[in-house]
Amino acid sequence: MSETRALAELAKRRGFFFPSNEAYGGTAGFYTYGPEGAALKRNIEDAWRDLFVRELGNMELEAPTIMPEAVFEASGHLEGFDDMIIECGECGATHRADHLVEDAVEDIEDAEALGAERVAELITEHRIVCPSCTTPLAEQPVEEFNLMFGTNIGPGSGSPGYLRPETAQGIFVEFPRLKEYARNTLPFGVAQIGRAYRNEISPRRALVRVREFTQAELEHFIDPEHDEPPIERVEDIELPLYSAAAQQDDGGTVEYHTVGAALDAGILESEWVAYYLGRAVPFYERIGIDMDRFRYRQHLAGERAHYAADCWDAETELGGNWIEITGFAHRSDYDLSKHGEYADDSFTIFRQYDEPQTVERATVDPDMSYLGPEFGSDAAAIVAELESLAGRDRAAFEGESVPVEIDGTMHAVPVDKTGFSVEEQTETGEHIIPHVIEPSFGIDRIVYSVLIHTHGTDLVDDETRTFLELPATIAPTTVAVVPLMTKDGLDDRAREVTDRLRTAGFEVAYDDSGNIGRRYRRQDEVGTPYCVTIDYETLEDDTVTVRERDSTEQRRVEIEGLPTALERLVSGAALSEL
Amino acid sequence: MSETRALAELAKRRGFFFPSNEAYGGTAGFYTYGPEGAALKRNIEDAWRDLFVRELGNMELEAPTIMPEAVFEASGHLEGFDDMIIECGECGATHRADHLVEDAVEDIEDAEALGAERVAELITEHRIVCPSCTTPLAEQPVEEFNLMFGTNIGPGSGSPGYLRPETAQGIFVEFPRLKEYARNTLPFGVAQIGRAYRNEISPRRALVRVREFTQAELEHFIDPEHDEPPIERVEDIELPLYSAAAQQDDGGTVEYHTVGAALDAGILESEWVAYYLGRAVPFYERIGIDMDRFRYRQHLAGERAHYAADCWDAETELGGNWIEITGFAHRSDYDLSKHGEYADDSFTIFRQYDEPQTVERATVDPDMSYLGPEFGSDAAAIVAELESLAGRDRAAFEGESVPVEIDGTMHAVPVDKTGFSVEEQTETGEHIIPHVIEPSFGIDRIVYSVLIHTHGTDLVDDETRTFLELPATIAPTTVAVVPLMTKDGLDDRAREVTDRLRTAGFEVAYDDSGNIGRRYRRQDEVGTPYCVTIDYETLEDDTVTVRERDSTEQRRVEIEGLPTALERLVSGAALSEL
Repeated sequence: MSETRALAELAKRRGFFFPSNEAYGGTAGFYTYGPEGAALKRNIEDAWRDLFVRELGNMELEAPTIMPEAVFEASGHLEGFDDMIIECGECGATHRADHLVEDAVEDIEDAEALGAERVAELITEHRIVCPSCTTPLAEQPVEEFNLMFGTNIGPGSGSPGYLRPETAQGIFVEFPRLKEYARNTLPFGVAQIGRAYRNEISPRRALVRVREFTQAELEHFIDPEHDEPPIERVEDIELPLYSAAAQQDDGGTVEYHTVGAALDAGILESEWVAYYLGRAVPFYERIGIDMDRFRYRQHLAGERAHYAADCWDAETELGGNWIEITGFAHRSDYDLSKHGEYADDSFTIFRQYDEPQTVERATVDPDMSYLGPEFGSDAAAIVAELESLAGRDRAAFEGESVPVEIDGTMHAVPVDKTGFSVEEQTETGEHIIPHVIEPSFGIDRIVYSVLIHTHGTDLVDDETRTFLELPATIAPTTVAVVPLMTKDGLDDRAREVTDRLRTAGFEVAYDDSGNIGRRYRRQDEVGTPYCVTIDYETLEDDTVTVRERDSTEQRRVEIEGLPTALERLVSGAALSEL
Repeated sequence: MSETRALAELAKRRGFFFPSNEAYGGTAGFYTYGPEGAALKRNIEDAWRDLFVRELGNMELEAPTIMPEAVFEASGHLEGFDDMIIECGECGATHRADHLVEDAVEDIEDAEALGAERVAELITEHRIVCPSCTTPLAEQPVEEFNLMFGTNIGPGSGSPGYLRPETAQGIFVEFPRLKEYARNTLPFGVAQIGRAYRNEISPRRALVRVREFTQAELEHFIDPEHDEPPIERVEDIELPLYSAAAQQDDGGTVEYHTVGAALDAGILESEWVAYYLGRAVPFYERIGIDMDRFRYRQHLAGERAHYAADCWDAETELGGNWIEITGFAHRSDYDLSKHGEYADDSFTIFRQYDEPQTVERATVDPDMSYLGPEFGSDAAAIVAELESLAGRDRAAFEGESVPVEIDGTMHAVPVDKTGFSVEEQTETGEHIIPHVIEPSFGIDRIVYSVLIHTHGTDLVDDETRTFLELPATIAPTTVAVVPLMTKDGLDDRAREVTDRLRTAGFEVAYDDSGNIGRRYRRQDEVGTPYCVTIDYETLEDDTVTVRERDSTEQRRVEIEGLPTALERLVSGAALSEL
């Protein structure tokens, strides 16, 4: 059984995740996290929050998932967030047209870039058939399908809304208010952990391509000219880099460089992107990603969004495939510029000069008693053109008359009728559009990667054991309390210990069902790092055994000191050090 | 300014919550939590999880917000989750028709119960006009508007889906799997904290009536005949009860009874509902609800869903209005029965008998070689009727022939051709449909109540001070570190202390902007319970002052012991006890 199938079986049986609504035949692309999975996911989100919000002193907000259409007109999602689809004329099944072409035609790796028309031609030329019913798809139209889930806000269809395709937009649209919370000072970061939605044509690979998912996104707003990241904090962190050059080179592979060295060598272009690539490594390590199955891959020129200055993905290897789990993008001023253009508010920030600056401003004050009679219905357009001209080309006002072109016709306006003058003004700063650095984490894919990377088997007492080697701070349950027997007061004592550990803040499971070996296996399988066993010795001397998942070793500890002992273990101490 | 308006102003200015998408003109019914509000909300959710999941040993899951139509056919939301609306023929504005009638006609308090037709008549009879443009609404149709947000899953409109109107359905539909995680043993509880959606016609009152909100719901599955709650754990907790009888009685008011006394007096009918009313009190207290502005109100007979056995709401008083913040419902077997009926899986659980039971089962084994020729095309229907008859009326087989009615025609089947026999079977248990007890918390309304109840002003040094008296465990920031000056190394020292406290796990703000009094005020206003001030004495003897928000008193503490001192304060110690 492949590692992804083995994990899917475990995930369903033990309550990590499973396809939603199976009692109703299932709903492709939707998964429910069971008790173990919901706890694991929450622990991973908390670890992210700890590193990317609290430690970096960023803000966090929580915005609605439904947003009005105007937002996505500005962001470009309404126009451009499409997949190419083709519908079978026979069976009615819908498929990704570009994927069909990529699968059928050698040498085509990015069919989407060819356009719908060319893709339709290729489908006809190569006699591509419907994967569901094998009817030829020739002559079927290829259409653009918008991946946003649409809905209506309020009664009627007058207020279309969409489920956000990324949490980022909920941050961008509130920039005018967020900058006030940041006291109008760059740089500042705003994070959000929440649901996002994409109406995928072909959901697949368990949690990898789903229709509803959780993102953890950080939008770091910077002054592109003046702000630099504290690169010294990460410069010695080693990164596994798979550069665009290496990808295009036949023998190219992942190379290991420190952040500092990669910047010096020009492999990383943006210091800000480099900073976050470095910052993210301790996060992946902390939550249990196998760093031997991890790499940073640079986007190829064709992959990159047109506004993105530099882009790297964090990828994990799962069942032989590399999967994107995080995107690190320099989004430049694209998002704030677009919202500034479409929305009715200011998406700039005031940058104070070090010293006030004196600048010359040219203005006009046209004599309408002359322009009106002289130019009639063109007068207003002439005034507008004079104003524009004063700003961009003072030389035009140096002659006796100013040439102005309106709808192809040249007019000459006497300079003394334009009211042209140049004045000195003192300015203390200027309004700039911040740039955005965005690390965007796909939480579900990260949960999935952690499960696959920590899932394994070994031999214990000649029996095969299945385990999840989850870090103690991430595991759904930190400690399981197991009474040797459910008699002679052992179970009562075990419940007392359970309560005591819960009060001390641990995630505790109580398990008294089946023989003790089977209970250990059950805990190993869901990744519980420690078991505490209550036996007859406990009743005599108030000690318990602590069993470690990874080594299966045991050690006796006094109940009195149990919370402290467990805290030390969780913080990384070895059992032998207790 | 009313307390709700004062709070709304503070909430927007300081980043608790604000209307979403204001740069695009706003979207009614949608709010964004800013940095302070998102942290407060998360702390309240964590407190809920602590009490209702961890302490009670319940499971928690996380399900998608989009669910397929079949789920809501079963749950009844597709058919019955409607509001009555009327559209103005003149200006096109849409209004709640039942609300217009309630506002205009004396003595009508629940117009919805009258039905759409009668409401339309009342609008005509009472010459009710459009509140937007004052055009008479007479003769305009009153329609039922479904409050679920609809969308389509995948391309085309073949797979309608809806945003869940309550998180509960994501739990109910997975019952067949959840019972396995509970090892097929009742009772067990499953909780979920997540978004839910209602496409309200008239969103209003800030966070009270919104279109997208967060619920924390617990579905406790019980065996209605055998399971009893551990009522002894809550029986001495005092509840402010506003019973249905008191509401209908002219002088009726809230009465205080312990859980035990209210059950004995019959004010509370269901022990399970009583148990959760008791369990919830420490939750409300812990998060800062003013219990003098809190009550439990019983649903009146007309208010209650037809399946609900008993229903109480927790309500808070906000700006003179009582608002529901939690519903406690005994949902009986309604939900699981419906899903069992509509879905393709079993929504029952096997209840083992204490002892295996021997029961008699009557069966038939008809002689088809006789029935076929004798009854022709009616034979199959006759067999079905004989099987049914054997189960429900053995006496029918006591004569020589059995009378069977098919489509109004009576047939007589000789008993010896029916193969009737009675056999003894041993059964170890039976399949039962669990009942559901549901405490359902509206997190946004709770956040809003906490803010309004803790918001106040007083006089400090003859100046009006605005504060939020948030409990230390719930406040967005636990401690603010403020250097007296940003020179002479005071600020560096303050940053060191900030880092140290963050490492110790506290939520810390660093604030060095403006005079010290203003900084204290700023922290008071967002509810930060403690400020740590770094001054010149700090540089000499490594001590700082700790200032308490509520008393504004200060006390010197050694930096070395600061984390421990703060932990004690957060746990409830007074400043004077340090």
